[in-house]
Amino acid sequence: MTDLSSMEAIRSACRDLPEGDRDGTRAAAERQNMLTKPPGSLGRLEDLAVFLAGWQGRERPALDRVDILVFAGAHGVVARGVSAYPAEVTAQMVANFAAGGAAINQLARVAGARLSVTALDIDTPTGDFTRGPAMTEAEFLNAVRKGYQAVPEDTHLVCLGEMGIGNTTTAAAVAAALFGGEGAEWVGRGTGVDDTGLKRKAEAVDAALALHGAALADPLSALRLIGGRELAAMFGAALAARRNRIPVLVDGFVSTAAIAPLARLHPQGLSHALAGHVSAEAAHGELLAALGLDPLLDLNMRLGEGSGAAVAISILRAAVACHNGMATFAEAGVSGA
Amino acid sequence: MTDLSSMEAIRSACRDLPEGDRDGTRAAAERQNMLTKPPGSLGRLEDLAVFLAGWQGRERPALDRVDILVFAGAHGVVARGVSAYPAEVTAQMVANFAAGGAAINQLARVAGARLSVTALDIDTPTGDFTRGPAMTEAEFLNAVRKGYQAVPEDTHLVCLGEMGIGNTTTAAAVAAALFGGEGAEWVGRGTGVDDTGLKRKAEAVDAALALHGAALADPLSALRLIGGRELAAMFGAALAARRNRIPVLVDGFVSTAAIAPLARLHPQGLSHALAGHVSAEAAHGELLAALGLDPLLDLNMRLGEGSGAAVAISILRAAVACHNGMATFAEAGVSGA
Repeated sequence: MTDLSSMEAIRSACRDLPEGDRDGTRAAAERQNMLTKPPGSLGRLEDLAVFLAGWQGRERPALDRVDILVFAGAHGVVARGVSAYPAEVTAQMVANFAAGGAAINQLARVAGARLSVTALDIDTPTGDFTRGPAMTEAEFLNAVRKGYQAVPEDTHLVCLGEMGIGNTTTAAAVAAALFGGEGAEWVGRGTGVDDTGLKRKAEAVDAALALHGAALADPLSALRLIGGRELAAMFGAALAARRNRIPVLVDGFVSTAAIAPLARLHPQGLSHALAGHVSAEAAHGELLAALGLDPLLDLNMRLGEGSGAAVAISILRAAVACHNGMATFAEAGVSGA
Repeated sequence: MTDLSSMEAIRSACRDLPEGDRDGTRAAAERQNMLTKPPGSLGRLEDLAVFLAGWQGRERPALDRVDILVFAGAHGVVARGVSAYPAEVTAQMVANFAAGGAAINQLARVAGARLSVTALDIDTPTGDFTRGPAMTEAEFLNAVRKGYQAVPEDTHLVCLGEMGIGNTTTAAAVAAALFGGEGAEWVGRGTGVDDTGLKRKAEAVDAALALHGAALADPLSALRLIGGRELAAMFGAALAARRNRIPVLVDGFVSTAAIAPLARLHPQGLSHALAGHVSAEAAHGELLAALGLDPLLDLNMRLGEGSGAAVAISILRAAVACHNGMATFAEAGVSGA
C-alpha cells in the first residue's frame, strides 16, 4: 500500500501519478470510426468508451465490476444550525443503507453495481471549523487511508458518494478555500434550509475562512482544517483510483469538493474523473466548471449518497455496449458515406 | 382495433383520448413524500415515477416490459442529394438490426428492452415531395396502421425510433409545415452533410412548402404529403400508446416530428410522451420546446434508431426503482426535517 502516513507522504503520492494508456485510447478511437454509424453520431457515448479504454488500457473496456463507495461522517459545524435535519439522521441513514431502504440501494441494484458504505466515526463529530480545526492530522490521515483502502484493485469503475448532515456547508468551505470567493457564493440549500439557514451557512463558511486564513492556501491542509472525514475519505479513494488507473464517477457538490484538492496537487490529478451529474445544489455547476468537468446528467437531483453518479453508470454501460458490441461497416456490409 | 380506415377515421381516433389516472398520480406523489430523502431531492426521478404511475393507474409503476419500436422507410427526396449516405444504406441497416450489429441492438440489451424493427416498403421509396405527394392516402393509412399495430397492449413503455436515409429532410419539412418557418430553420446536418448538402436540404423543404401550400395546414395531410412511411408509423404507434395509456419515450428529431401532428390534433395528444434526449440535430431542441417536451438527456447524440430513447430507459428504471423500493421515514426510523 502507498505510504499515506503523513501529510507530506500524501503530497508525494499525489505527485507520482501514472498516465492513461495511449495505445488503448488510439485503438478504441479507431474502432469507433469503423462501427456502423455516422462518425460521431453517438456523441458522448463515443468519448466515454474511448475514455474508459484509455484508463483500462485495452481497445474494448469492461464494466463487469462497478463499485459505489459511500462514506459517512459527522460534522461539528452542525452546531451552527446549518442543516434542515438533525445530526442523528446521519447514523439513521447509515442504518437505512444497511437495511437496503435508501435511494442508493435501489440505484446500485438497477445499475448492477456493488454498494459499500463506510461510516467514519459518526458518533464523534469533527471539530466545529468556525472555532478550530475540523480534524487533527491523525484523524485526517486515518480518514484518507480508509478511503484509499476502500477502492478494490480489480474494479472497472468507482462511484463516490457520501452521507453527512451538515456536509454541504463543509463542501462550500472547501470550495471557497480552493477557488476563492465568499461563503454566499458557494452555499446552497442542501437538504432544504430556508433563507435564514442559508445565511447561517454563508456565515459559517466566512467565519472558517477568517479563522484559518493562510493555512487554507495548501489544498490538503484546507481539507483537514475545514473538511470532514467523509470528504477526506473520498479524496483518498479518488487518489487510489488515480494511482491504479481506475476511472471515477463523481456525484454531487460534496463529492466534487472532496476530490478537488487532487486537481490542485497535480495538474492531471482528476483526469480519470467523470462528473455523473450536475446537482441542484446552487454552486455545483460552478465547481464542476472550475475543475473542467462536464456533467453527464442534469436531472435536478440533490440527494447525495452517490445517487447521481449511480444513475450515470447506465450511460457508461450504454457507451461500452455500443463500443464493444456493434458491427463494423465491413462486418455488416453497410456502405460508407 | 380502432378504425383507421380513412383520414377522417384517424382524426376521430385522435379526438377520443383517455386521461391519465388521477388516483394513481396522487397516490404516487404521496408516496414520494414519505420516502427517506428530503422532499424533491431526487428531482426529475420523482416526477418520472409519478408520471408513470399516472399513466399506468397504480401507485407503484412497473417497467417489466419495455418495447423499442424501430420503423424504417425509404424517401423519394433522396434524389435531391440531401444525404451523406446512399439510399441503399436503409436496407443494409435493417439487415444489421436483424443481425444484432447496430447501436440499438446493444442499447436495447443493456436497457432490458425488446427491440422490434418494422421495414415499410423500403424497396419502394415514397414520392419526391418536392414534385408531388410523398404518399397516397392508401399508402399513408397503411403505414399508420402498421405503427398502431406494433404497440403491444401489455407493454409498460414504448420507445420510438427510426431508420431512413433522407428522413431528417422529411422531418424538417413536417416541422416547418406544423410550426412555420423556412427550410433553413429546420434542417440540420443529419448523418453529416456538408454546407452544400445542407443548402440542398433547405431548398428541398422550401420547394415542398411552396408546392403543397395550403394543404399542409392540416397536420395529418402534412404528414402524408411531405412525411414518410416510418414517420406515419411512429405517429400511429404514438396514437396507439396514447389510446391505451402507455407512456412513450421519443427519440430524436425525426421521431419527434413524426408524432408532433398528434399534439396538433388534440391538446393533450402528447401528454403521455417523454423526450428521451435532445439530439445534436440542429432544430431538435426548438422542436421539443414547441411541443413542451423537456429532454432527459443531452449527450450530443444524433444517430436515430431510437438510440437516445433507449439510453433514457435507464433513467426511468432508476426512477421506478427508487419509487418502489425505498423505505419510508416511518419504516426506516429516520427523523424528519
